[in-house]
Amino acid sequence: MKPSEIIYRPIGIIHSEHTVAEKTPIQPVYAEGCKGYAEVFPDFTEGLKDLEGFSHIYLIYHFHQSPQCKLIVKPFLQDIDRGIFSTRAPFRPNPVGLSVVELKKVERNILHVDGIDVLDGTPLLDIKPYTAKFDSCNVKNSGWQDQIDEQTAQKRGKRGYCRL
Amino acid sequence: MKPSEIIYRPIGIIHSEHTVAEKTPIQPVYAEGCKGYAEVFPDFTEGLKDLEGFSHIYLIYHFHQSPQCKLIVKPFLQDIDRGIFSTRAPFRPNPVGLSVVELKKVERNILHVDGIDVLDGTPLLDIKPYTAKFDSCNVKNSGWQDQIDEQTAQKRGKRGYCRL
Repeated sequence: MKPSEIIYRPIGIIHSEHTVAEKTPIQPVYAEGCKGYAEVFPDFTEGLKDLEGFSHIYLIYHFHQSPQCKLIVKPFLQDIDRGIFSTRAPFRPNPVGLSVVELKKVERNILHVDGIDVLDGTPLLDIKPYTAKFDSCNVKNSGWQDQIDEQTAQKRGKRGYCRL
Repeated sequence: MKPSEIIYRPIGIIHSEHTVAEKTPIQPVYAEGCKGYAEVFPDFTEGLKDLEGFSHIYLIYHFHQSPQCKLIVKPFLQDIDRGIFSTRAPFRPNPVGLSVVELKKVERNILHVDGIDVLDGTPLLDIKPYTAKFDSCNVKNSGWQDQIDEQTAQKRGKRGYCRL
């Protein structure tokens, strides 16, 4: 038996300078210098206590402008068909986005972040601390991404948008 | 205006040896040697193409046994009240779980993984490749977690369950 549907509600909204999906950098590593903020709805402000001590956080969000799911996609970094789960592309069965961003400052219910690769107005689902202990892994292989040289990755990753 | 509700459906089920929430390790780093697998429903098998080349993957899942949301919690690692978003505890407004696990083998729609810290039967929402480039950050501070010595973290993190 497949479990039934799961209902989430946004805890806030991500604000950024990225207003066109096609020009939004694809990952924080290609969005250096792109500032933005996560506005957490006041009902949840209490849950932000102690977050300021972390230099990096995960933003988990809903790709609200993602069109229909595709199981095979050409990733932004490469013109070769890849399985959706081997990419970070938005056309996922559940369009959940995940970015690690640098947390610069917390002002009440506003989290100021750097390296934002998220479209303006994106619904925020969760925030988690990123820690060296839990999240910084000794990666042996990065699959098809290992085929991409740094110059190509930088060019395609930034998608012509971000100031540096 | 707050955006309306977001509906997701599981893409699979996580299977592990952890059958009691209170005895489940709290993060993969404390679940070394704990094997398990993610069963992806056959409808989505095609999307797993090219995943095998990655040594680590993110599992994004729904904490299906999580009781009601709490904005202030005592984390498993420390007896001090902390804001929920500065912890990885399950009692979140949207009970989304995130673990980085080592991908050992892909057999059709089954992903065999190591370091599983997830309760058996947990609904799987998404799978993403973990890459050195996107996800391995140079963390300066890990907030309250920096206060915890390694011995305490190991003892509390494993929660008495995992074989090593």
